[in-house]
Amino acid sequence: MGTSDAAARVGAGQSALDPKIAARLRRNEDGLIAAIAQQYDTGEVLMLGWMDDEALHRTLTTGRCTYWSRSRQEYWVKGETSGHAQWVKSVALDCDADVILVRVDQVGSACHTGDRTCFDADLLEANRVDHAEAG
Amino acid sequence: MGTSDAAARVGAGQSALDPKIAARLRRNEDGLIAAIAQQYDTGEVLMLGWMDDEALHRTLTTGRCTYWSRSRQEYWVKGETSGHAQWVKSVALDCDADVILVRVDQVGSACHTGDRTCFDADLLEANRVDHAEAG
Repeated sequence: MGTSDAAARVGAGQSALDPKIAARLRRNEDGLIAAIAQQYDTGEVLMLGWMDDEALHRTLTTGRCTYWSRSRQEYWVKGETSGHAQWVKSVALDCDADVILVRVDQVGSACHTGDRTCFDADLLEANRVDHAEAG
Repeated sequence: MGTSDAAARVGAGQSALDPKIAARLRRNEDGLIAAIAQQYDTGEVLMLGWMDDEALHRTLTTGRCTYWSRSRQEYWVKGETSGHAQWVKSVALDCDADVILVRVDQVGSACHTGDRTCFDADLLEANRVDHAEAG
């Protein structure tokens, strides 16, 4: 990734994303869709990131999961700094065309804290109801 | 759920959500956080919905996954109409406190189309790169 595109998002309509896919996407007000990364073999939900058209295009074409970092306002090839790459196995769009599910092979930890997934550290207390009793 | 709360979201600070949890949540501009529903035993990613504080509170306390419907602007107890309930097994907050992962036991189909998950119907063509070759 050149430094020229590290500073600003590729504008709508300027991405090389397949126009047939682009026409279907339902983006939020920032031009982004949510992207869930899941370990392809274990089923672990690893993290949720955000993609614009160009990030999705790169994810579909480079074999590496690429997000739009909202905090840094730049493209983020997962693992580029940490080495914890996400190798793309498959990409699916949901029924509303506003969420992507990327099945990946995650190298090492998905979470910046060092945890395997971003959901490992903070389990909330929840009541569990027995369906049979609940009807 | 009474009809009195079907029309409008419970305002921030008016929910019965545990204040210790509420203090940590990082909500979007609409006061919502993304919620990923995953089948607890198979690992299938079922859908992504949105929750405000009250929807999270109800999810944590009633045993049934409850979302805020952005299109209908009302609370949505998953399966209330369809019978396709999501029985809560566990709830985890992510490292940034802006995404919830709810592990559930999904009755029937999660998707309104009748598919088991919202990601079953629309696989995008993606290049897969062999890591070994790619380094």
